[in-house]
Amino acid sequence: MTADSRHLYAVLRRVRPLHLLSARAVTAALESEQLTLGVRALLETLTDGGPAPVPAIGRMLSMPRQVIQRLVDQAIEQGLVATRPNPAHRRSPLVELTAHGRTTFGRVHEAELHNLSTIAAALDPDDVAAAVRVLDALVAGVARITGDQPEEAT
Amino acid sequence: MTADSRHLYAVLRRVRPLHLLSARAVTAALESEQLTLGVRALLETLTDGGPAPVPAIGRMLSMPRQVIQRLVDQAIEQGLVATRPNPAHRRSPLVELTAHGRTTFGRVHEAELHNLSTIAAALDPDDVAAAVRVLDALVAGVARITGDQPEEAT
Repeated sequence: MTADSRHLYAVLRRVRPLHLLSARAVTAALESEQLTLGVRALLETLTDGGPAPVPAIGRMLSMPRQVIQRLVDQAIEQGLVATRPNPAHRRSPLVELTAHGRTTFGRVHEAELHNLSTIAAALDPDDVAAAVRVLDALVAGVARITGDQPEEAT
Repeated sequence: MTADSRHLYAVLRRVRPLHLLSARAVTAALESEQLTLGVRALLETLTDGGPAPVPAIGRMLSMPRQVIQRLVDQAIEQGLVATRPNPAHRRSPLVELTAHGRTTFGRVHEAELHNLSTIAAALDPDDVAAAVRVLDALVAGVARITGDQPEEAT
């Protein structure tokens, strides 16, 4: 038996409210760290994917290069990231985490995971695994519809 | 056994890309109908919940009242919605779908479901049901963290 599209739409219907709510929750948690949501996303991308030039970060976050450049400038000022020469592209330096950036994101993310633990404790791990499968299929499938490259989600 | 927060975070991590991609897919599909994403959301809210005043629609969509008022004005101009007196609040009329609004949203949404059917056909209905459960738990749980009222997701 296969799922029907009306049922699958129930998944999509929950995505926007959850996106708004979690952006709000993450923003509130960042206040004490003096981090913005954008800089947090930058730190997460560099934590997961390692050093990267601005255009690649923009593709990963589905954000315009100019926006990423502003986030990088802000993060450099806060001592969270630094740039170094890019052997592959002389004019597009690599952005990398500083030690301060790494520990800051680590601390922020641990607090986020702690907040999630109560919600996780009430859930079946098989359900969570199924949710990841369904969302991955939706990301890939909707990207095919729009002709877009899905941003990295791992 | 219960889920762990790191695994649950994998679900949250997929929400922003999926939100961006589906907004893009829906917007592209709306072009031929001369509808905006906002007016589409208004029509969907009225289809599901029946006639409602502007402030209630704002709460359901987590959008400021002024934004909803602009969408309502736009939709009135397109003949998709109309207002009628609200017995409960003299100064806050009810917004309701016109017959044209109802058939327009019906047609738009059928096309969206048709687009989803290929993705749905490759999924296990139990996985989809699990995904809905997990997303509902996240919406409710994250709303508790932020102290927000979750927007309606059904």
